[in-house]
Amino acid sequence: MATKTTPTLSDVQAARERIGSRTRVTPVYSSDNLSARTGRPVVLKAENLQRTGSFKIRGAVNILATLSPEERAAGVYAASAGNHGQAVAAAARDLGVRATIFMPQDAPVAKVEPTVSYGAEVVLVGAGFEEALAEAVRGADETGATFVHAFENERVIAGQGTIGLELMEQMPELETLLVPVGGGGLAAGIAIAVRGLRPEVRLVGVEARRDGYTIADGIAVKRPGDLTGRILDELLDDRVTVTDEEISEAITLLLDRSKLVVEGAGAVGVAALVSGKVDGQGPACALLSGGNIDPTLLISVLQHGLTSAGRYLVIRSRLPDRPGELIKLLSLIAEERGNLVSVAHQRQGVSLDLGDTGVELTIVMRNEEHCQTMLAALEANGFPVERLR
Amino acid sequence: MATKTTPTLSDVQAARERIGSRTRVTPVYSSDNLSARTGRPVVLKAENLQRTGSFKIRGAVNILATLSPEERAAGVYAASAGNHGQAVAAAARDLGVRATIFMPQDAPVAKVEPTVSYGAEVVLVGAGFEEALAEAVRGADETGATFVHAFENERVIAGQGTIGLELMEQMPELETLLVPVGGGGLAAGIAIAVRGLRPEVRLVGVEARRDGYTIADGIAVKRPGDLTGRILDELLDDRVTVTDEEISEAITLLLDRSKLVVEGAGAVGVAALVSGKVDGQGPACALLSGGNIDPTLLISVLQHGLTSAGRYLVIRSRLPDRPGELIKLLSLIAEERGNLVSVAHQRQGVSLDLGDTGVELTIVMRNEEHCQTMLAALEANGFPVERLR
Repeated sequence: MATKTTPTLSDVQAARERIGSRTRVTPVYSSDNLSARTGRPVVLKAENLQRTGSFKIRGAVNILATLSPEERAAGVYAASAGNHGQAVAAAARDLGVRATIFMPQDAPVAKVEPTVSYGAEVVLVGAGFEEALAEAVRGADETGATFVHAFENERVIAGQGTIGLELMEQMPELETLLVPVGGGGLAAGIAIAVRGLRPEVRLVGVEARRDGYTIADGIAVKRPGDLTGRILDELLDDRVTVTDEEISEAITLLLDRSKLVVEGAGAVGVAALVSGKVDGQGPACALLSGGNIDPTLLISVLQHGLTSAGRYLVIRSRLPDRPGELIKLLSLIAEERGNLVSVAHQRQGVSLDLGDTGVELTIVMRNEEHCQTMLAALEANGFPVERLR
Repeated sequence: MATKTTPTLSDVQAARERIGSRTRVTPVYSSDNLSARTGRPVVLKAENLQRTGSFKIRGAVNILATLSPEERAAGVYAASAGNHGQAVAAAARDLGVRATIFMPQDAPVAKVEPTVSYGAEVVLVGAGFEEALAEAVRGADETGATFVHAFENERVIAGQGTIGLELMEQMPELETLLVPVGGGGLAAGIAIAVRGLRPEVRLVGVEARRDGYTIADGIAVKRPGDLTGRILDELLDDRVTVTDEEISEAITLLLDRSKLVVEGAGAVGVAALVSGKVDGQGPACALLSGGNIDPTLLISVLQHGLTSAGRYLVIRSRLPDRPGELIKLLSLIAEERGNLVSVAHQRQGVSLDLGDTGVELTIVMRNEEHCQTMLAALEANGFPVERLR
């Protein structure tokens, strides 16, 4: 394969012309809440509201729109843990090209089903991204289809860079831009656009910690390639890393206060800002790169975030084993305006005194202060309470 | 009180000038998924992304910006089950006016905390909206403050109508517009704007069923007043009613496919479209009026929606009471690629045969088809299964 050349600002500008009618100019929102938390103006670029739920459609349209008639006829292959596959599928449908997408066997439904619904053939194969990738490359070789790499491709990078062009128009006061870094195609494209137009903007790449499981599955499976790695080394001012705990908090905040559904990889910029890992006081923009989070994972993240914020109180208590005691406990909780989620009532257990009954309760509360009032009221009424969460 | 006069198109146009810098022009999105489901082009007007999370800021800014210096100095009072309170608080802060907001005692945290954070004084009083309203009116009378009604006010109606002006520019092809109806201020304002500019557009008001509890708390506590009721009777083409079940499905769809957090009242238009209650084939727009749903309620709605869609499988089974049986069951579930959420294991119970152990499992699945495969595999391996959900 020939050495790939770095795309230029004019490649990005050409991409913008090409993808215009098939992608959205995504909106920016200033966030009062995040600005107050971080002590600087914070703006969100809502690329989660892009078609297919992520930025990947930009690069996919840009490459598919430049295929020759022969290449179009032979179709395209891609490998993806999720968003890239949806994007190639949607771009292929737009342009009348056959697409085959290889995904790992356990790819989340939130990513498989939309890909199928865009009319692509989906092949679930292998335990992880690397295996799906190998199969896609092999399949493309055999059939003469064009293999569309998720990031290590000049036209894909140029397509993602169009976000940078939009942002320069939407936010002339921008000082610091936070961009998620996975394979690096997004950050590389944006860096080329921003450096070309406003070299003084500070560019910060944000990565998820890669040791083991992470909720930022959109970026954690990848590392920058030769081409994107070279561009990022040259153009980024800084790189920071955030934890799953920080990402969860950011997802919860964005949902609760900004009404935006953002996936783990898309929330790393806000996570970096809120956790104080990015200095400076000037206007900052966090790019929300995508919104394709599996709803079952979103529920877990929210429950975790709400428990941290004192919105769920989980307690264990003991009741004297006689009729009416549970009713007394529940009445007290209702009086204190707790909203019961679940009750597990256990009449036998190795840790209970004979004649006692164990009960475990999950209660929706207003906030941590409300939790403290509730705990005090329970103790004052003679119920021994152990707080589990 | 003098009889209120109906605002005109030029009142709405004047409101737009007045509120411009303090409110957002909210974006519209065409939804492939909803278009495919309903067989007509469907566009969403994402007013949930408005400042304060709902349309109410438009009316609040419009009225506060027209107060005299003396009225500003005396402050404003409002009663609200949620969104109106946040909006008046934010508008008051913008314009340097003191705001006191009366809310029912059990107002959701998602609505109380932001109101406080905008700097308003919040008074929690009464079991429902009516009592909070009475207190707010009384308080305003006593102190000389201006009482800002949530809908029965010309300037509030004109402010909400600015959505109609935006939409006429954003969607020239619009044929049918679905607007939530609670107190009717939103629908009245929009109807005035749309009738004035494009009288041929079909206007459908959507209400939540009012018998008892509803998740559309933003509209269910209110009925149109004299003024708004008169305007709606004259200008709406049609009115439909949706159920909580339909609203839940709409909230889940909007979150999962459009990446938008929408509250119950804001999802009624999509609910009406998806449930087939609105006929016609031309381009339809559902106004997503707000996004302020309590996250604990959102979790319940999502869990319900995901269970309906086969994403959660809840089963009860019985195990022979000997070591290793639970492991066998769990291994089988893992092999079939079910993702375990909870296990309740019960060694005694009135409905169990002696020597058996009951177990209740919640499993995350891909879809209903996957549920069927799992159930068949469990039966084939000798585990008796009762599907609970």
